Amino acid sequence: MGSLDCSADTSSEFKPLDPEDFRNQAHKVVDFIADYYKQVETYPVLTQVQPDYLRARLPQTAPYLPEPLETILSDVTKDIIPGMTHWLSPNFFGFFPATVSTAAFLGEMLCTSFNAVSFNWLASPAATELEMIVTDWLANMLKLPNTFMFSGTGGGVIQNTSSDAILVTLIAARDRMLRTRGSTATIQKLAVYCSDQTHSTFAKAAKLAGISPCNVKAIPTNLDTAFALSASALRLAVEADVASGLVPLYLCATVGTTSTTAIDPLPPLSDLASEFGMWMHVDAAYGGSACICPEFRHYLEGIERVDSLSLSPHKWLLTYLDCCCLWVTHPNLLVQALSTDPEYLKNKPSESKSVVDYKDWQVGTGRKFKSLRLWFVLRSYGVVSLQSHIRSDIRMAKTFEGLVKSDPRFEVVVPRNFALVCFRLNPFSGEDPERTEALNRKLLDWVNSTGRVYMTHTKVGGIYILRFAVGATLTEEHHVAAAWKLIKEGAYAVLNGV
Amino acid sequence: MGSLDCSADTSSEFKPLDPEDFRNQAHKVVDFIADYYKQVETYPVLTQVQPDYLRARLPQTAPYLPEPLETILSDVTKDIIPGMTHWLSPNFFGFFPATVSTAAFLGEMLCTSFNAVSFNWLASPAATELEMIVTDWLANMLKLPNTFMFSGTGGGVIQNTSSDAILVTLIAARDRMLRTRGSTATIQKLAVYCSDQTHSTFAKAAKLAGISPCNVKAIPTNLDTAFALSASALRLAVEADVASGLVPLYLCATVGTTSTTAIDPLPPLSDLASEFGMWMHVDAAYGGSACICPEFRHYLEGIERVDSLSLSPHKWLLTYLDCCCLWVTHPNLLVQALSTDPEYLKNKPSESKSVVDYKDWQVGTGRKFKSLRLWFVLRSYGVVSLQSHIRSDIRMAKTFEGLVKSDPRFEVVVPRNFALVCFRLNPFSGEDPERTEALNRKLLDWVNSTGRVYMTHTKVGGIYILRFAVGATLTEEHHVAAAWKLIKEGAYAVLNGV
Repeated sequence: MGSLDCSADTSSEFKPLDPEDFRNQAHKVVDFIADYYKQVETYPVLTQVQPDYLRARLPQTAPYLPEPLETILSDVTKDIIPGMTHWLSPNFFGFFPATVSTAAFLGEMLCTSFNAVSFNWLASPAATELEMIVTDWLANMLKLPNTFMFSGTGGGVIQNTSSDAILVTLIAARDRMLRTRGSTATIQKLAVYCSDQTHSTFAKAAKLAGISPCNVKAIPTNLDTAFALSASALRLAVEADVASGLVPLYLCATVGTTSTTAIDPLPPLSDLASEFGMWMHVDAAYGGSACICPEFRHYLEGIERVDSLSLSPHKWLLTYLDCCCLWVTHPNLLVQALSTDPEYLKNKPSESKSVVDYKDWQVGTGRKFKSLRLWFVLRSYGVVSLQSHIRSDIRMAKTFEGLVKSDPRFEVVVPRNFALVCFRLNPFSGEDPERTEALNRKLLDWVNSTGRVYMTHTKVGGIYILRFAVGATLTEEHHVAAAWKLIKEGAYAVLNGV
Repeated sequence: MGSLDCSADTSSEFKPLDPEDFRNQAHKVVDFIADYYKQVETYPVLTQVQPDYLRARLPQTAPYLPEPLETILSDVTKDIIPGMTHWLSPNFFGFFPATVSTAAFLGEMLCTSFNAVSFNWLASPAATELEMIVTDWLANMLKLPNTFMFSGTGGGVIQNTSSDAILVTLIAARDRMLRTRGSTATIQKLAVYCSDQTHSTFAKAAKLAGISPCNVKAIPTNLDTAFALSASALRLAVEADVASGLVPLYLCATVGTTSTTAIDPLPPLSDLASEFGMWMHVDAAYGGSACICPEFRHYLEGIERVDSLSLSPHKWLLTYLDCCCLWVTHPNLLVQALSTDPEYLKNKPSESKSVVDYKDWQVGTGRKFKSLRLWFVLRSYGVVSLQSHIRSDIRMAKTFEGLVKSDPRFEVVVPRNFALVCFRLNPFSGEDPERTEALNRKLLDWVNSTGRVYMTHTKVGGIYILRFAVGATLTEEHHVAAAWKLIKEGAYAVLNGV
């Protein structure tokens, strides 16, 4: 970088981590980022570039000689930023927002800078122990029973994604079943359960784990129960499977599904899981964060009878990607399924069994000092600000819901639980479902192609729905109001063929 | 943070991403990190804390009210840094170093700041396209055939770890086999192959994928062949398995094993894999990086006949964790095995099949703008500096090897290939193996407990070996010389019972 001599033999001078060089360059990038955050509202939310736009702009091979930071940053501005969909724009209402914060950024800077590879305790004790403490802290905030905490009999770990959390618990459940049931439960006979609203990553994780795709049973849901998994429908499916020789293994319930934030009823589902000897996991990737507020904690009622719970602070607790907390009541089952013990990693603390080696709680071996980000968020903002942050998003979603309801051409399709509003333009009151769907597709295209707002869609129970997810970190009331105004303009345009 | 009002109802004032606040706080943390890098040499490399040291120092629950950055940073200094094993210390010679650089840090700052969740092309086209370009760039630097490049018929992707790379290719191979061989290849009959030196994550990945642990065949190696996998020994094992009804599925060869950097011979192994219809993967996590230098490229000879290759720039190409490049010759097999297509992610570019959706190349759904770090490194340093960086590490390792050889009490146990020296104290010329091992264990403890140097050990062919891995980013010749001086002091102490 700056101090680098570009002559052909740089070997003697090449210092890729000179602290003063680092300081100078990193300050420049801090300013670049702060400026990006100031300007992000001015960029089209959904990029308008076409496939392969970047290949035409960049060289085909890496440079032989070093290039200065200024050139690279100028290319970021010129070539990268125009090709991004700006998840941090206050006008981003797509998917679930991925929230961020200054505190998390600072924690991540430290995590990166230390580059501690904490596969086991000894490789960086602080990294392991802070993760144990921080997952206990968040468990406390969620009022989880101490069977999920290190201060009790369980424990938490930070995975990269919900997919990882589901995969590792599924493997733990699978291996316990194959071990305890012996020849009566071969891998081909194992069946896993979810609803047709469960995130697609569950079926993928099951496939990865060697579960036959035809034994991944997605129980149909419907609008009458707001797309929640029905325990009685599940019972029928499980009983039929058992009768046909399958072995029920794992049930994945969701608190806040991706399409509509449906909430599966944990108490009857956990009864059923228990009755049939299934591992029960709760995927609360999005909705779980709201449960740090007393008024939403009831969504986790029944949690004391499940085996594992995952929740992604990167969705709603301001931490940036990748931060998915997984809590388990029986860590030993994870460790039994996932531990490795090569000679080159052997060490006295691990052999004494007095420490946690997180490599045995995850897919890979290497891992970063993941807890710093969450620790910075919890300390910098305190429980009080995080609660108010959740409430503020929900308040804005309520505002939007009110606006939708106030316009007779629109309808809210499913009840709002958190900060997602599922609605559609329905001026003909559903007389012609295909026409209504086509109209909403047009409206979505119209809105997104302006670049001023980005929303996404889903389809549930045959109904094409527009999803308006409030919660991008920079979003304020006036952005929501402006988005609604734009949507109304779009409705006028598509209804009048403008 | 700074501007936050701590009164009970902070909802109206809570702005977790105020750009000016961000700027001020991030500048402070840049200085904190630059100072850490200046001081890292003064910390004990291997921490001296005891298990559970941190729980006693931190509160049991998250704070209700916000805390200022200064307090948190002071706790990092007081409670976190003393509990870390400092991977960035110039005196870190353990495992394989995890290398870093200013350029990679800057790229990671941008990656974090954008928080682009690039599961599919549309969700952030720049993120997908830059990853395609950068993996092509590195493939070019390695002189991979264009069957591994997007500009040819294959393509690359950045995984978090080698474990992920192995798992996803194993799943692709497994599903192809189950699909094409139908009932003659059930999952219980699938067998996978490696050597007894292959990284432990391979057996773990196989287990995750549902391969029976007894069908993970680790072929024994020995000192005579420097612990490389013998194609003839592998042939005997495969033939015996086929005769007994097993179906050979996947062969994992390694270029630079973890214990001793052994190099498996790719040409005869790829012949064998091809003859038996196995997917062949090459794990070049560490050693592969050296192949950007023409004089080491021969270690990849035969690569044109394998199915996939993984290499972790976070090990030797200065990128920080997590950055593992995986190239495949048949991306469609990954996509067939790993794709999901929920309604809420459907979009026109994906449906047109004109774009890459990286969610279908990995375990999870969410993913970061991973390529920025590697792009910054390649551009900031150019091929020339990266080559000189590799050469400089190898030169230092040669120096250390020369010092070991110059002392008759020591021996180099296996030939050095890269920047790892495998040696031991052997004053009795192996007369009493147990005594020699005990002596080396003592020596390792003596050295590591000083906190001045950190080395690790391994055991291969029954021989307990000390591993001296040169390559931490800040290491210079004088650190290597000082380490050797310390090791000699240790030898004197343990030999003379001091």
